[in-house]
Amino acid sequence: MIRLAIHLALDYEVREPGSHFIFNIHAAHTERQRVLQEHLDLNQGVPWRVDTDPATLNRILRVSPGPGPLRLRYAATIELDHHVAQPAAIPEVPIAQLPTHVLPSLYPSRYCPSDRLLRLALQEFGHQVPGYARVQGVRDWVLRRTTFKSNTSTGTTSALDTLLDTVGVCRDFAHLMIALCRAINVPARFTTGIDYGADPALGPTDFHAYVEAYLGGRWYIFDPSGTAIPMGFVRFGTGRDAADVAFATIFGDVLAGAPRIQIEVLPDDQGRLVMPWHCPEALSTDA
Amino acid sequence: MIRLAIHLALDYEVREPGSHFIFNIHAAHTERQRVLQEHLDLNQGVPWRVDTDPATLNRILRVSPGPGPLRLRYAATIELDHHVAQPAAIPEVPIAQLPTHVLPSLYPSRYCPSDRLLRLALQEFGHQVPGYARVQGVRDWVLRRTTFKSNTSTGTTSALDTLLDTVGVCRDFAHLMIALCRAINVPARFTTGIDYGADPALGPTDFHAYVEAYLGGRWYIFDPSGTAIPMGFVRFGTGRDAADVAFATIFGDVLAGAPRIQIEVLPDDQGRLVMPWHCPEALSTDA
Amino acid sequence: MIRLAIHLALDYEVREPGSHFIFNIHAAHTERQRVLQEHLDLNQGVPWRVDTDPATLNRILRVSPGPGPLRLRYAATIELDHHVAQPAAIPEVPIAQLPTHVLPSLYPSRYCPSDRLLRLALQEFGHQVPGYARVQGVRDWVLRRTTFKSNTSTGTTSALDTLLDTVGVCRDFAHLMIALCRAINVPARFTTGIDYGADPALGPTDFHAYVEAYLGGRWYIFDPSGTAIPMGFVRFGTGRDAADVAFATIFGDVLAGAPRIQIEVLPDDQGRLVMPWHCPEALSTDA
Amino acid sequence: MIRLAIHLALDYEVREPGSHFIFNIHAAHTERQRVLQEHLDLNQGVPWRVDTDPATLNRILRVSPGPGPLRLRYAATIELDHHVAQPAAIPEVPIAQLPTHVLPSLYPSRYCPSDRLLRLALQEFGHQVPGYARVQGVRDWVLRRTTFKSNTSTGTTSALDTLLDTVGVCRDFAHLMIALCRAINVPARFTTGIDYGADPALGPTDFHAYVEAYLGGRWYIFDPSGTAIPMGFVRFGTGRDAADVAFATIFGDVLAGAPRIQIEVLPDDQGRLVMPWHCPEALSTDA
Repeated sequence: MIRLAIHLALDYEVREPGSHFIFNIHAAHTERQRVLQEHLDLNQGVPWRVDTDPATLNRILRVSPGPGPLRLRYAATIELDHHVAQPAAIPEVPIAQLPTHVLPSLYPSRYCPSDRLLRLALQEFGHQVPGYARVQGVRDWVLRRTTFKSNTSTGTTSALDTLLDTVGVCRDFAHLMIALCRAINVPARFTTGIDYGADPALGPTDFHAYVEAYLGGRWYIFDPSGTAIPMGFVRFGTGRDAADVAFATIFGDVLAGAPRIQIEVLPDDQGRLVMPWHCPEALSTDA
Repeated sequence: MIRLAIHLALDYEVREPGSHFIFNIHAAHTERQRVLQEHLDLNQGVPWRVDTDPATLNRILRVSPGPGPLRLRYAATIELDHHVAQPAAIPEVPIAQLPTHVLPSLYPSRYCPSDRLLRLALQEFGHQVPGYARVQGVRDWVLRRTTFKSNTSTGTTSALDTLLDTVGVCRDFAHLMIALCRAINVPARFTTGIDYGADPALGPTDFHAYVEAYLGGRWYIFDPSGTAIPMGFVRFGTGRDAADVAFATIFGDVLAGAPRIQIEVLPDDQGRLVMPWHCPEALSTDA
Repeated sequence: MIRLAIHLALDYEVREPGSHFIFNIHAAHTERQRVLQEHLDLNQGVPWRVDTDPATLNRILRVSPGPGPLRLRYAATIELDHHVAQPAAIPEVPIAQLPTHVLPSLYPSRYCPSDRLLRLALQEFGHQVPGYARVQGVRDWVLRRTTFKSNTSTGTTSALDTLLDTVGVCRDFAHLMIALCRAINVPARFTTGIDYGADPALGPTDFHAYVEAYLGGRWYIFDPSGTAIPMGFVRFGTGRDAADVAFATIFGDVLAGAPRIQIEVLPDDQGRLVMPWHCPEALSTDA
Repeated sequence: MIRLAIHLALDYEVREPGSHFIFNIHAAHTERQRVLQEHLDLNQGVPWRVDTDPATLNRILRVSPGPGPLRLRYAATIELDHHVAQPAAIPEVPIAQLPTHVLPSLYPSRYCPSDRLLRLALQEFGHQVPGYARVQGVRDWVLRRTTFKSNTSTGTTSALDTLLDTVGVCRDFAHLMIALCRAINVPARFTTGIDYGADPALGPTDFHAYVEAYLGGRWYIFDPSGTAIPMGFVRFGTGRDAADVAFATIFGDVLAGAPRIQIEVLPDDQGRLVMPWHCPEALSTDA
């Protein structure tokens, strides 16, 4: 079990009345990710509420500030008790046996138009043995063909663009991997959060986007960016793609500061500091 | 109240083992659409089950036939007790007041990439008074700019294509209207079903796709195809777009026959035959 | 007759050997645009040559500098003796009567994929009387639907993007107008140069892109940007679209400074200063 | 030297006055392709003329029939005296040394948007030694990743679509190869004609599209379709892509029959029958 403390500081200058923020910055409650404690603080008087989306169980913070500064602080202590499995023992799930609630992760979405990649995915991955290793192969394929480069993609960049452009950021790599997985009938979804141990060469700790694929009856974590340690991921939300789980969707004339994010390992109940490491096993925090 | 009897006959030739069908052909249970009785019949021995999707409440039929003919018959008696409202009295809902479960209908999706149409939609509809009439204006705009023409679109045709091509079928017109609505912050979703009173010039009764937009705290029905009578729509499913609610998603080597669909008006409890008509009021069957 | 003096100063820092520049910054020689004198100056020792492209008659400057600074100065005195015609007297040319050398301006190109706009163009312009006024109508349509905004488009932005995005710069508006013209069988080409009298609100004098459409047996000038005075255009090159006539195509690791451009009206042989003005007549400098 | 006789029969039913045909079905006159004799026959009274396009030297047949049947017969005897070279001896031409008239074959075009493939091409081919073998490697790459399948592409299918879809016909493979060549700064153009020895499994002899790349100061022939014998190609036209050299561009309401094409080897002056064969050398018919 890994215990992590996270702190988020988000600052905005709201410049018109009627502005509205939809945040997804609360740590998710999942089978294997427990929120031991958390605290949300907004500057005085700003009305807000937290809802749980019925489809994704994402925790959605709605904020309706008036003009002026908006200061948001979120702190939480998280315990990760990963389901750990041997890759070789994890099968793909035949479509006929996929639970109905998993099916939407099989369909094309805004940034993951898997319907356009059916033949290409079949050509690249169709002859490989189904199972975790094949999906890891999709992840490796994406990592091999893409290069991390800031500011090379925009809010309209889809997996097809990333395939052609061969550059992007974590969000783009996740979209491409998801589209390819769906094209070979493996349910895959977009997951956001923050990660302990991100490559410092990429700048200060930031939000992260990665992939969960449904294999062997669970959602397993994959990181096609190759820049992070999956064992250190704290999940905020999941969705079809980035359209569903932006950390902040903002309506109105708002000036945003750079988010400041901290994450650190805490001692567990026995006083041990368990650090995330690059392990060869498959990891999952959600059934 | 309108009472309708529907009959669906779907025939397939399954040509390989391991095939799987995901159908969405069950009439939805909604606040104002009651399924008085229904009956599903598949040829002998084929395993199937019906699940309800937690996000959409769509009823999903899963069928795993072996090789050979698959014959599906579905019959239902439906009662529609529309919520009827005066268009002038129906406001748009400010984003801050939209329920969280409605938000996904605001985000771009595979066939409705509203993020690409923000400026165009603002230019066309931004200066109009918010409310039902503005959304009806979007519907009229789509109807005016598009022409019904069979076989002009494919499974990859998006709202952007339809905007450029100016032709399509009901599915395409729905996608375009939905994308434009989302671009002006009106939640809109793709709805499928069948309709009483379709224009016979368009061929035999077929599945239909239309739009529901969230206004005044309810989902109101819009038909950008202009070929049908909204009061006669029986809803099967809703979703972000056609990716979510195909009437049949088929995995495996399968030969499909043309669906045969019948719909007729039945006498209600008082023995009256109430026929759908083109009414000027706004109609809704779901809150 | 209008006499103009132009001065261009282009400065680069070449950072690797083997770099190469393809410039199109020489004033064109056309029926109605005479280059009275010109002078090209490059810093010492840099090899260069000027060729004339056989298809477009564009004058192409090829420069192969070594590492270090590249300084280019071009000065010319130009005389414009416009062919001036009454719009109402200018017909479209039936396809059967179009000269063969004009046909490429009818075909789709990289940034002007007119094949995608056939129906839309027919719907918008198909019922108008063929002639100059119809083409001016296309120009007005583009101007009405687009907004000038720097840095909203990139090197991959096509006319379809501009149609959807409704923003861009002169290059984008030209591409959209050209694509629409070709879609209604009016040959149209992309023209680059500089312009006297550009709107000072848009910044210092810069390169300009506009449209020439083939009507009544000549190439007439159209400015869908609406920011310039067509009578003050000095033409450098023409092509299918911006792919053909970049003012500079650079191969190698090169740092570019901002171009500095000056244009002024000179007295003609009779000592008169004739200034370009917004005239209602149709203008052409090329047959 | 190879001597070939070709016969084309094209039949149309013209259904409205004012129709116009732009054909490119005349064998090209090139350095190494001689037209020994040719004969064009149209049904009585139809006005026509043949022009030579100044940029491409394509021979363009313009026909303006009235309503009724249009019957076109073209027969020619062609002599091919290929320039034959050892692949290992053929270098790429540095950009600085490319003739100006070759530059348009370096720029992106409608169906070959090479600007979108710069990184991907660099990643795949950037580390290979420049020269004929690298370009042949591009050809092999395309052949390996695509599958011939009739009716999978349309008039709007670009090289990007073909890269994603992995299927197409000869035109599509040529577009993809051209786009990749331009992306690594190798001039490449689209060439049309007919071929002796086409794979009979693909149906009756049809028009063919292939690629010419500019290497070692000449245009060398490449066939990314892999279905034909390059030594048996008779060239009609060249252009940026299929937008420039359709064998028939038709304006008006016209019903087209299937083209009937025959090609056979004739004895040369010494009475020998020299048959095209798959040779390992590089072939060119044009400087």
